[in-house]
Amino acid sequence: MTVRQHKYLLDESEMPTRWYNIVPDLPEPPAPPLHPGTHEPVGPDDLAPLFPMDLILQEVSTESYIDIPDEVQDVYRLWRPSPLFRAHRLEQALGTPARIYYKYEGVSPAGSHKPNTAVPQAFYNAKEGTKKLTTETGAGQWGIALAFACSLFGLECEVWQVGASFDSKPYRRTVMETFGASVHRSPSQLTEAGRAFAADHPGSLGIAISEAVEVAGQHPEVKYALGSVLNHVLLHQTIIGEEALLQLAKAGESGADLVIGCTGGGSNFGGLAFPFIREKLAGRQNPVIRAVEPASCPSLTRGEYRYDFGDTAGFTPLLKMHTLGHDFVPDPIHAGGLRYHGMAPLISHIYELGLMEALSIEQTECFAAAVQFARTEGIVPAPEPTHALAATIREALACKESGEEKVIVTALCGHGMLDMAAYDAYLQGRMTDLELTDDRLAAALATVPSLA
Amino acid sequence: MTVRQHKYLLDESEMPTRWYNIVPDLPEPPAPPLHPGTHEPVGPDDLAPLFPMDLILQEVSTESYIDIPDEVQDVYRLWRPSPLFRAHRLEQALGTPARIYYKYEGVSPAGSHKPNTAVPQAFYNAKEGTKKLTTETGAGQWGIALAFACSLFGLECEVWQVGASFDSKPYRRTVMETFGASVHRSPSQLTEAGRAFAADHPGSLGIAISEAVEVAGQHPEVKYALGSVLNHVLLHQTIIGEEALLQLAKAGESGADLVIGCTGGGSNFGGLAFPFIREKLAGRQNPVIRAVEPASCPSLTRGEYRYDFGDTAGFTPLLKMHTLGHDFVPDPIHAGGLRYHGMAPLISHIYELGLMEALSIEQTECFAAAVQFARTEGIVPAPEPTHALAATIREALACKESGEEKVIVTALCGHGMLDMAAYDAYLQGRMTDLELTDDRLAAALATVPSLA
Repeated sequence: MTVRQHKYLLDESEMPTRWYNIVPDLPEPPAPPLHPGTHEPVGPDDLAPLFPMDLILQEVSTESYIDIPDEVQDVYRLWRPSPLFRAHRLEQALGTPARIYYKYEGVSPAGSHKPNTAVPQAFYNAKEGTKKLTTETGAGQWGIALAFACSLFGLECEVWQVGASFDSKPYRRTVMETFGASVHRSPSQLTEAGRAFAADHPGSLGIAISEAVEVAGQHPEVKYALGSVLNHVLLHQTIIGEEALLQLAKAGESGADLVIGCTGGGSNFGGLAFPFIREKLAGRQNPVIRAVEPASCPSLTRGEYRYDFGDTAGFTPLLKMHTLGHDFVPDPIHAGGLRYHGMAPLISHIYELGLMEALSIEQTECFAAAVQFARTEGIVPAPEPTHALAATIREALACKESGEEKVIVTALCGHGMLDMAAYDAYLQGRMTDLELTDDRLAAALATVPSLA
Repeated sequence: MTVRQHKYLLDESEMPTRWYNIVPDLPEPPAPPLHPGTHEPVGPDDLAPLFPMDLILQEVSTESYIDIPDEVQDVYRLWRPSPLFRAHRLEQALGTPARIYYKYEGVSPAGSHKPNTAVPQAFYNAKEGTKKLTTETGAGQWGIALAFACSLFGLECEVWQVGASFDSKPYRRTVMETFGASVHRSPSQLTEAGRAFAADHPGSLGIAISEAVEVAGQHPEVKYALGSVLNHVLLHQTIIGEEALLQLAKAGESGADLVIGCTGGGSNFGGLAFPFIREKLAGRQNPVIRAVEPASCPSLTRGEYRYDFGDTAGFTPLLKMHTLGHDFVPDPIHAGGLRYHGMAPLISHIYELGLMEALSIEQTECFAAAVQFARTEGIVPAPEPTHALAATIREALACKESGEEKVIVTALCGHGMLDMAAYDAYLQGRMTDLELTDDRLAAALATVPSLA
C-alpha cells in the first residue's frame, strides 16, 4: 500500500508572526464607514467608545503587515499552526483527479476559526485597561471564542445570545460559562434595544449586536467585540491563509487553482483568501477565488451594494456592503449558519473589483456533502463550512469529467460536534430547501437607509 | 517575552508502526478468561462466534510487538500522531515547579482515544468477511468511534446505547448516524436480554453489552466489538504511550516521574501507561504509575479481584478482574463517565503485581480541576479525564510545597464538547458528591458468581 500523507503541519517556530492587510494592495481603497447620524466618514474618535485604539488603528491601517504581539502568539501556539489536510479519502470516493486540500480550524479551543481574532481583541483591550467585553453570538461559536480569550487575559465577558439559539442549544451557553462568561438571552430586558421586543422574541444577530453595543457605549471601561465583518477582524484571520500557503508548498504544490470558502460575515473566507489574492495580484499564483453562501441568506449574490447598518437598532456606523437589509433574518428552516444580513465591506469591495466569484447553494446539497465528507475524512463539519464543501465537491466532480488535476484549497473552519441538530434534520429527511423569494428580499431591502 | 513551546508534534513518518503487548514483559501471566458454562479456560474457538481470528490471536498473544497493518496506519494518519502538550499556562496558574505534559486524544474523529482500537477492529473484521459489527455504548464516544471506523471499511454498524444516555444525549446518536450507524435504545425489544427489562428502564452498559453480544452470536457474518477491557483493545491503545515517549524525548525530558490516567474499563490508561511500565521494568525510567477512578464507581480501589461476567446477562466469558459486581450501576448523580463495573483484567493483574497505584476522587473536585484547566489551557476536557486532571493538580500543588520539579505525564483522552450537561450541573451548583456506601457495595458484590 502506498504511504499517503494526510496532514501538512508546521512547527510552532514556523508560525507566521505578522497578519496581512490586503487594503494597500488593492487597486482602489474600500469606501469608508459613515457616522450613523451625520453620514460623514467616521474617524478614530467616533469608534473610541467601542474599541481600543490599537484595534481602531488596525481598522484603518494602510500598512501591508502588522506584527502579531508576542502575548498573542503565545496563545495562538496552544493550537496553531493548524493543520492543512490532503483529502485523499474524499478524492478517492469521488473518483476525481483534483487534489483537494482543506485548512482545518476546528482544532482551536472553540472548535472554530473565531479565536484567531478573539485572542488579539482581548489582548489589546486588556492592554488598554478595558475591564469587560460585550458581544453578541448566534449559535455560540463566537461567544465561546471570546469567553476563552477573555479568561486568558483576565477580562470579564458578557454575551447576548440570539434567543432561538439560547433556547435550543443550552450547552453552548455552558461552554461559555465554563470559560467564565455571563450569558443573556437576546432580546433581554437589560437594554433599551432589547426591551423594544417581546421577551419571548426569537431574536436575531442584529438585535443582539444592538444590545451589546448599547451596554458597551455606557461605560468607559466596557468595550465591544465583533467576531466578523470589520477590517481588523479579517486582518487577524489572515494567519489561516498565510499558514496554508506555507503548507501547500510543503505538500509540493506550486500554488492553488481554486480557493473556496464559505461566507457569513466574511472573516473565515477573508482569512483564507486574502493571502492567496495577494499572490494573484503579484502574479505569483493565479487561483480562482470563490465564496459560497446559503441560498436562504445570499448577501453577496442577491443583496444590494449599499450603505447599511451593522445592527437592527441602527447604533453602528453605516457600512458599504452587500446587504439584505439590516433587519433581515433568514427563514427558520435555514440550518446552515451564516445568518448575517450583510457582508464584510472589504469582501464586498473585492467582489465589486472582480477579484473573486460568489455563488449560493441550497442546504440539502450542503449537508449531503458534509455527510460524504464525514464518512471519508472522519471530521463532522460545522454547518457553515458545509457550503464550501458542497462547492468543492461540485468542482471535484467537474474535474472528473474534464480530467483536470486542479489544486483546490478550502477552509474547514470548524467541527460540528455542537451543531448536530441540523444533521439530525437532514438524516431524518426533515430538512427542506427554501430559496429567498424576490418579494421577501424586496421587503427586507426597503429598510436600508437612503443616503442623501 | 520568552518563547514557550506548547505542543510536541511528530511527523506522520515518525508514527509508531507497532503496538506494544505488555504480557510477555510481566513477571507472571494474567489469569485466563473462563467459559461461562464450564468454568474452563476459553480457547480461540470459543471466541470465534464473536471476534475475527486476528483479534483472538492478539488477545492471547505472547509476542512483545504486533505490526500495525498499513491500512490501519493510513486511517490513523487522519489524526495521528496526536499532540503532546506542555501545560505552561496551567503550571503558571498553579505556581508549581512541576512540568506537566498531557497527551491529547481529542483530535480524533470521535473526539476521544476510542478510534485507536475501533479502526483495527473494523479492519480485521472486514478482512475476515464480517458484514456487520454490533456494540454497546454509554455516553456515545465508543459508538461514534466504531461507527466512524465501520464507515471507512464498508461494514454495517449497529449500536445499543444505554437508555438514559439515549434519552438525554440525542446528538450523540446523530453523530453515529452521520457516520452511517443504526442506533437502538437499550434495553430494546430486539433481544431476549433487553426484553427482560421494562421498555423505559434507564439501561446500563452491562445490559447493552448483553444485547449486542446476543445479536452477534446469532449470525456468522455479524461480530461484536468491545471498546475497552480486553487485551487486544488495550494493545491497540498503546500507540498513545509509544508516541508520548518519543514526544517527551523531543521535549528534552529523560523520562517521566509520574504517569497519571483515568480508569473506566482501562483502555485509555493502559494505552498511555503500558509503554512507560515497559521502560520501568527495563530500568530505563522509574515513573510512578497512577490510576484515578470515580469515588462512585471505584472498581480498582474498592472492588474485589475475582472472576466475574463482563455483562449483566452473563453471556460473556468470566474475567478475573477488580469488580463491583456485574449488575452494578453507579448512582444517577454520578456525572463523570467511567461507569463500568469491572476493570480490564490486564490492569487488574498489573495492579495486583504492585506495578501501579490507584486512587478515587469525588466528582466536584474533578470538575473544579476541569474548569481551571479549560480557563488556562483552552480545552474543555471530557468528563472522564477530569479525574486524571484532578490528580495531576493535586500532585502539582504537592510539588509547589516540596519544590520538586517532577515531570508529570497525563492522558487527556477526549474533549467535552458533547458532554456539557455535567459542566452545567457543576457550574450551577447542582453537582454533589456521593461516595459508594459499604452496604451498596456489598449488595452489588453478592451477584459475583462463586467458582468451585
